[in-house]
Amino acid sequence: MNYDAHLDQALNRLHEEGRYRTFIDIERTKGQYPHAVWRKPDGSEAPVTVWCGNDYLGMGQHPVVLEAMHEAIDATGAGSGGTRNISGTTVYHNRLEACLADLHQKESALLFTSAYIANDATLSTLPKLFPGLIIYSDALNHASMIEGVRRNGGAKRIFRHNDLDHLRELMAADDPDAPKLIAFESIYSMDGDIAPISELCDLADEFGALTYLDEVHAVGMYGPRGGGIAERDGVMDRIDIINGTLAKAYGVMGGYIAASAKMCDAIRSYAPGFIFTTSIPPAVAAGACASVEFLKTDQELRAKHQTQASILKLRLKGLGLPIVDHGTHIVPVIVGDPIHTKKLSDMLLSEYGIYVQPINFPTVPRGTERLRFTPSPVHGPSEMDALVSALDNLWSHCALNRAELAG
Amino acid sequence: MNYDAHLDQALNRLHEEGRYRTFIDIERTKGQYPHAVWRKPDGSEAPVTVWCGNDYLGMGQHPVVLEAMHEAIDATGAGSGGTRNISGTTVYHNRLEACLADLHQKESALLFTSAYIANDATLSTLPKLFPGLIIYSDALNHASMIEGVRRNGGAKRIFRHNDLDHLRELMAADDPDAPKLIAFESIYSMDGDIAPISELCDLADEFGALTYLDEVHAVGMYGPRGGGIAERDGVMDRIDIINGTLAKAYGVMGGYIAASAKMCDAIRSYAPGFIFTTSIPPAVAAGACASVEFLKTDQELRAKHQTQASILKLRLKGLGLPIVDHGTHIVPVIVGDPIHTKKLSDMLLSEYGIYVQPINFPTVPRGTERLRFTPSPVHGPSEMDALVSALDNLWSHCALNRAELAG
Repeated sequence: MNYDAHLDQALNRLHEEGRYRTFIDIERTKGQYPHAVWRKPDGSEAPVTVWCGNDYLGMGQHPVVLEAMHEAIDATGAGSGGTRNISGTTVYHNRLEACLADLHQKESALLFTSAYIANDATLSTLPKLFPGLIIYSDALNHASMIEGVRRNGGAKRIFRHNDLDHLRELMAADDPDAPKLIAFESIYSMDGDIAPISELCDLADEFGALTYLDEVHAVGMYGPRGGGIAERDGVMDRIDIINGTLAKAYGVMGGYIAASAKMCDAIRSYAPGFIFTTSIPPAVAAGACASVEFLKTDQELRAKHQTQASILKLRLKGLGLPIVDHGTHIVPVIVGDPIHTKKLSDMLLSEYGIYVQPINFPTVPRGTERLRFTPSPVHGPSEMDALVSALDNLWSHCALNRAELAG
Repeated sequence: MNYDAHLDQALNRLHEEGRYRTFIDIERTKGQYPHAVWRKPDGSEAPVTVWCGNDYLGMGQHPVVLEAMHEAIDATGAGSGGTRNISGTTVYHNRLEACLADLHQKESALLFTSAYIANDATLSTLPKLFPGLIIYSDALNHASMIEGVRRNGGAKRIFRHNDLDHLRELMAADDPDAPKLIAFESIYSMDGDIAPISELCDLADEFGALTYLDEVHAVGMYGPRGGGIAERDGVMDRIDIINGTLAKAYGVMGGYIAASAKMCDAIRSYAPGFIFTTSIPPAVAAGACASVEFLKTDQELRAKHQTQASILKLRLKGLGLPIVDHGTHIVPVIVGDPIHTKKLSDMLLSEYGIYVQPINFPTVPRGTERLRFTPSPVHGPSEMDALVSALDNLWSHCALNRAELAG
């Protein structure tokens, strides 16, 4: 058995399709974000501006977050030392869970090492709790939800993205007495479009289904307290399980669900991905908690974030660039070919000091390869001028389409 | 559909079987570990000694670790801001991967958010790389390996724990041309027994199989540089993929695999659990790296760890307590009943200020419920005296068996 040949084959497939990923080594300098240092493979360094990070509000360098982390390290040390059940539950974890339950106005919340594992573990555990559960999953749900739904071995139906009619059709065709769950996201991160949450909840009511909402690209950024799109739309109470992350707008790490006390208790008790893993370090929990609390009251960063996104979209549209605009903070520019996308990303990095990673299959469907910009409150006018002018030059230089690929 | 009733049912099952888990809220005080503060449900506090933590060497409070974390926070901020591919690769991640590759003398290493996800993601991705792969999995493998093996949907064979004859029988019965992988642990954490690594590698050679070794309860603690049991036994080069954790002996958080450059590259490129998740915070990577480097040269903590474990086992044996002793640092005392185990744990905590969590099904087989003690270099003579005398009292008070349940 030649195992190496198989590995070669798997890797060559990626190279041939132009979607082999090269990680760019960047080091942010605290307080200077989005400016960072790019360490090239040859060891030399160059300054870059990060335009693809998920630290959407710059909270990863906010003093309240960093102070909370320093304090927790000084008070209690590095790691938690165990799983939540075996010596790994601290006041930091409990405090953060209480703070997240409050954020979403739920009875309880449950921390995971990431929102990925929160999705995967929760969605794969629900069929154990509700035998015969049918999960209705939006076609564009994140990989972690797909993995969780797949793993349960239970019944699943994929409904066309945000398509209420298709979902109704699928639900109506199933046994009315079967337990059901509708799983979807609020903001889909690759297009930046928003789910019709209220209408999805209407369908859930009609068919007696539970609702599961992934808000990872919305928490901290939408709603008067940062509770996400469901809070903004006044429908948080209609969602049974909300999934969120502490690694994007909150700038730290970790994921969670918020739900009823019983639901959290059952997931806590039955999900291997929760039970058998070391809890997050107290300092990470402390930093995340400080961030969530800060963004419950601060409106300035949220407002500035939206303003920056609007300005960038307006300017790129002005140049006729094929951007997708659904009114959110995510700014995708469609290129439509993996090789071109990679090439553009490389040129932006090496010639303009602008770091934006190419987004290729399987993250997005083939033919919709893109550059995805994430403006933030810390991307000022000079950073934006540099980006807009670089894109204008490159689009001309490469004779790329303007506008017609836009969504 | 009454979803609440289903949740009640699921939770009641646990209460009835005496295996409903109650998390104990403890706060370690930096530098005082294993001493900590127990925050009771009523809000009052009491001092406790932690006897069940996985911070086996006390590295979670070691100055080299804490300084590295402080420095990284000051230099670069809180979170990494993205997945490894999209702005989340920093010099801290690269440095840690290089340090882990060196630890295991492999070409490469790959970081995950936990060793749980490292196992799950790697084992479920291998069948994509080697179509038709048959995974031979030890019957007592950790939940994360079981999840990974199950999820792949590929062929699996479970061999009786550490049973070479059974494994040979299973391998001989399969197509000689099929790709194969033997997946096992070095130290099984619930009994503390050790796999016959060399003999398992012989079988792998004979049948042309890859080897996958989970060393989470051994890295940092065994081998001249902390490379684990495979390093101690001089067989590291015979293992294709080594899995380890940064959350136990190294005292921080995160997990990894170490393997050939091609293998890591392929897992990196194909595993959703790696691709679609935010990378660990730079400060966590920095702390872990400092810890791994420290334990590559320091022999004192490793030696003291073993001494403490030997003394505790000797003293408990002297009292005739039913301990399991396989010559490692893990000290399980078998109780054999979930209700008794919980009761003992409660009494130790409330009456003696000794914190050791009950270990029940599904973590261990029913009928082998136990208390599992993890002595460390920071558990001194006075802590050990208190523990031994408390156990002696309780065993008499509860008229529990002495010795006959021992393994």
